[in-house]
Amino acid sequence: MKEIVPVQQKVVARNDELAARLAELFAARQIYVFNMLSSPGSGKTSLLERLLPRLSPHLRCGVIEGDVQTENDARRIARVGAPVRQIITCGTCHLDAQMILDHVGGLPLDALDVIFIENVGNLVCPSSYWLGENARMVILSTTEGDDKPAKYPAVFRKADLLVVNKIDLLPHTDFDMDQAVRYARGLNPDLAVFPVSCRTGEGLDDLVAKLAATVRDNQDSSP
Amino acid sequence: MKEIVPVQQKVVARNDELAARLAELFAARQIYVFNMLSSPGSGKTSLLERLLPRLSPHLRCGVIEGDVQTENDARRIARVGAPVRQIITCGTCHLDAQMILDHVGGLPLDALDVIFIENVGNLVCPSSYWLGENARMVILSTTEGDDKPAKYPAVFRKADLLVVNKIDLLPHTDFDMDQAVRYARGLNPDLAVFPVSCRTGEGLDDLVAKLAATVRDNQDSSP
Repeated sequence: MKEIVPVQQKVVARNDELAARLAELFAARQIYVFNMLSSPGSGKTSLLERLLPRLSPHLRCGVIEGDVQTENDARRIARVGAPVRQIITCGTCHLDAQMILDHVGGLPLDALDVIFIENVGNLVCPSSYWLGENARMVILSTTEGDDKPAKYPAVFRKADLLVVNKIDLLPHTDFDMDQAVRYARGLNPDLAVFPVSCRTGEGLDDLVAKLAATVRDNQDSSP
Repeated sequence: MKEIVPVQQKVVARNDELAARLAELFAARQIYVFNMLSSPGSGKTSLLERLLPRLSPHLRCGVIEGDVQTENDARRIARVGAPVRQIITCGTCHLDAQMILDHVGGLPLDALDVIFIENVGNLVCPSSYWLGENARMVILSTTEGDDKPAKYPAVFRKADLLVVNKIDLLPHTDFDMDQAVRYARGLNPDLAVFPVSCRTGEGLDDLVAKLAATVRDNQDSSP
């Protein structure tokens, strides 16, 4: 299996070059980009369905959806009225910068303040691939267990925001929020944590305020 | 990114050769092997904690645990009294046959009827790597959503058993069991489906009966 390591290093280095081009493109247009990472089914698309209507009065949002198969998620996002592009990876376990370069032109870039990139549901591989984003948002759902930051450290170490979703299910699980946050902050002391429920709406206002402030601060500090 | 494809094909072909060696080793000892695949947090370890005490009066079971980091799962399995080896992949997103060859000797192979290999939590990459197993068991939890077979088809297409875990949470989710099974059987018409709850024990007796019968049938048909 050893022959794959140098090739992978080369692939990641090439990806970083392309991602730097994306970062320039986004900066030139003052677009702030969030890369959303999580396990399958932790609620990335549900979170976007809740966030976009709350953010859109203040910020012009676009979405890039990444999935191994189906356009289901793009259809869900289009229903809440945001411009969206679907990337189908046909088996590949993560998005890469080339895929974003190939699809980002399909968004109305001159009319956006923010792009959310919803990565393939995978808590391992996407963490190695920068997509030119300004910030990484990791979504962990309570039903996955509080040990996930310890077991899948890379994705939590490189995150800027941790959204703990499905807190409405806390009474029905043995998820220990303090333990999860302790594991995550052990890897990443400055991690901002937002417990939310996409089902009840709990916690979403705080998250929306944080995202909007982050984007505005970035716009204010741009030349 | 194209340079990685031929290397990956070569790696998968080499893995298949090593896995064939494992399959011979298991067959020679009449050991039946299940490869368990799922998203992070769908309950593979919890399922083993429930299955092993129920199976052990009838079958001698061993476990190989695969994780990106931590030995937590091996400790949990050791507590229910089964021989177990932990593989820590240090970032690699799947188990491969070489890792199993390196660790399987740590199990008491002459005193086992069954080995459960708990793969890294990942619904994409592990599906490409045969580990010499006789059967693949995919675990999908209700909180992940009924659309997962459509969105991550490879792992469901190659499965022999589908365990739908966390059915105790069905009243608190919008998971549609018929829809999930329809998606999965659309890919894999012969897939055997077992809805279970590791929390309440519901459905476990049927699954235990199926696993025990599968192993016994295999032993009876061996030369």
